[in-house]
Amino acid sequence: MGGLENGATNNQNSSPTTTKPTKTSLSPDSMINLDQGDPTLFEPFWRKMGDKCTLVIEGCDLMSYFSDISNICWFLQPQLGDAIKRLHRVVGNAVTEDRNIVVGTGSTQLLMAALYALSSPADRHPVSLVAAAPFYSGYKDQAEFLRSGLYKWEGDAHTFDKDGPYIEVVTSPNNPDGAIREAVVNRGEGKLVYDLAYYWPQYTPITQPLDHDIMLFTFSKCTGHAGSRIGWALVKDKEVARKMTEYMQISSIGVSKESQIRAAKILGVLGEGCRTADSENFFEYSHSILKERWERLRNVVKNSRVFSLPKYPRDYCNFTGKYMDSNPAFAWLHSKEDIDWESRLREHKIIARSGERFGASPKHVRISMFSPPEAFNLFLERLSAIIDNTNGNVVT
Amino acid sequence: MGGLENGATNNQNSSPTTTKPTKTSLSPDSMINLDQGDPTLFEPFWRKMGDKCTLVIEGCDLMSYFSDISNICWFLQPQLGDAIKRLHRVVGNAVTEDRNIVVGTGSTQLLMAALYALSSPADRHPVSLVAAAPFYSGYKDQAEFLRSGLYKWEGDAHTFDKDGPYIEVVTSPNNPDGAIREAVVNRGEGKLVYDLAYYWPQYTPITQPLDHDIMLFTFSKCTGHAGSRIGWALVKDKEVARKMTEYMQISSIGVSKESQIRAAKILGVLGEGCRTADSENFFEYSHSILKERWERLRNVVKNSRVFSLPKYPRDYCNFTGKYMDSNPAFAWLHSKEDIDWESRLREHKIIARSGERFGASPKHVRISMFSPPEAFNLFLERLSAIIDNTNGNVVT
Repeated sequence: MGGLENGATNNQNSSPTTTKPTKTSLSPDSMINLDQGDPTLFEPFWRKMGDKCTLVIEGCDLMSYFSDISNICWFLQPQLGDAIKRLHRVVGNAVTEDRNIVVGTGSTQLLMAALYALSSPADRHPVSLVAAAPFYSGYKDQAEFLRSGLYKWEGDAHTFDKDGPYIEVVTSPNNPDGAIREAVVNRGEGKLVYDLAYYWPQYTPITQPLDHDIMLFTFSKCTGHAGSRIGWALVKDKEVARKMTEYMQISSIGVSKESQIRAAKILGVLGEGCRTADSENFFEYSHSILKERWERLRNVVKNSRVFSLPKYPRDYCNFTGKYMDSNPAFAWLHSKEDIDWESRLREHKIIARSGERFGASPKHVRISMFSPPEAFNLFLERLSAIIDNTNGNVVT
Repeated sequence: MGGLENGATNNQNSSPTTTKPTKTSLSPDSMINLDQGDPTLFEPFWRKMGDKCTLVIEGCDLMSYFSDISNICWFLQPQLGDAIKRLHRVVGNAVTEDRNIVVGTGSTQLLMAALYALSSPADRHPVSLVAAAPFYSGYKDQAEFLRSGLYKWEGDAHTFDKDGPYIEVVTSPNNPDGAIREAVVNRGEGKLVYDLAYYWPQYTPITQPLDHDIMLFTFSKCTGHAGSRIGWALVKDKEVARKMTEYMQISSIGVSKESQIRAAKILGVLGEGCRTADSENFFEYSHSILKERWERLRNVVKNSRVFSLPKYPRDYCNFTGKYMDSNPAFAWLHSKEDIDWESRLREHKIIARSGERFGASPKHVRISMFSPPEAFNLFLERLSAIIDNTNGNVVT
């Protein structure tokens, strides 16, 4: 598989007319890309759902910039707003009553919008942006790439000691390490953005409906539809929602309506499926895949003298009505050996992301649990071989 | 019609299952919004095209972040790239051979991407951004809203005299005044971005295939599908295309795939229609609407002692093989009287955008020619009444 410059092996030239399963043709020489979290492993479920999720759009549909001018977020399609609220009610992971919904081109664009909304051009100094390490590597890039005078990346929230206003991003469950998190800095001048991309039942027990000022979610990680680029923010304060909408207006004049109505349809089917037969319950399906992968990975890692994986507390999930384990989207592999594990794994034809990118040590690597089945199998084989070598102290 | 805070009267809650014509119910008291260029007036053509433009998307389609990892713009759906190239060949408005295509969430996001790509974090000072007045009001907002240290809005290109590197945006035909434009500053350190949103046969004669380093186009103004938020850049230099792609990756991890494949389909139908019967030629259809509106508007304005409209040279259009007039998307109305015409028109329940927003005098106003038919009729009635009053020197 060529084209690894862009960092992917599980490419699909998806076409709406061909809906065949992803073909992977990995050989012992193939590089396996476990860098990104491309959630195509959930595709078979949506194929099985057939016509229920099929969307038909006529040539004359959705032509206007506007969706609902009575809404602060005037480009939000009303059916998407409704589907989002219904799904949160079914899952019980977030409070939506009296919240403003702002839709974005993925939750990525919404984080940028939140930084814009929570900073003030009138302030002499940029507002500090922090997140507790290990933090999602994208936040730093987003905060720094335009050299904005509105906000400034200050890194790890644990060591943050600057005076003045700050924004803390709380990622829960956390990317990269899957931990359930609370705010760390806890000062009066602080504003919080909760990135809840992974607070869905396939990844973690749903212990309560969260009720924070700004909560970000994304279609990509909820259902696996990353290509649609749909995220949403639940926002308590009207003025913050208005400024986030303004960010979206200036930077892209709104968000794809085709993606919005498709997300509305699929989130609707997802919500319905939760109430009916198990075979149509997406969260059961996706949970079972991740659970099996985590069991297999833990079985491989437990033989190692140097590698370890985080342990997650079992917790009662209000959604399933059972005690459940966490099965995060990424494995945060730690090694006792003081080695740059990203480089070492690459020698073994495994692409993972170094702990350094997340404000941690290179003894950590983040590994996507989302790869196509064949790639995941090959990864476990190669990791087993590495572990056999390290146990014999023959690291090659 | 309420909800004018967000500045629109021609709202449509489009639904893919209801494809009824836009209903407007204007009364003599209704505010008419001619501020935005919401191109819903082209909707009837696409309705008439029926199934040819219908898009069907299955639940399992388009799930990956990736479209073509062998392409610099790895999230560009190949069928959209192909459709863009075919259409430019048919219309003859831009050279596409050996060009990199970067897709964006509208050309709005692509302008931001171009600013990022053409500036350098290594430079001590931000690169100057200029455009010849009257310039599109959005450029200033886009350059200033994040207080970027990479680039700085310096306003009118005609009066720009700072040393050092600069970026000039050349909008042709120009928004707001419809003029065909060339670069103004013409210095060695300059980089040019051509915003060619309106360089299509319904608006202006196509006199040559343009061949500039960075050329921006948008689906919104080409076919009227503003809700899809699809724009594209034709980029000569690989490194610039790579940096524009990087901007898109950091700010939104790509662009809606649903919108991309819909744009591919509709641009394909558009291109095919140009070769066949007149009734299926979108450019003929949209040209005839705009031509009729311009004739009616000029008929009203010619009675005025104070108002005037720009005159455009007739030119030979290579696409139609005829001499043609320009019929811009906006009317750039000028008044001899030293009055803030945006405010004055608002008293007459017409919302237009002041010349001041475009770096010009408030004696100018920009008026969208894209309003629904009923709104356009009412606008002409009201403008006639204003002109009758101003001719009698009784401005109310």
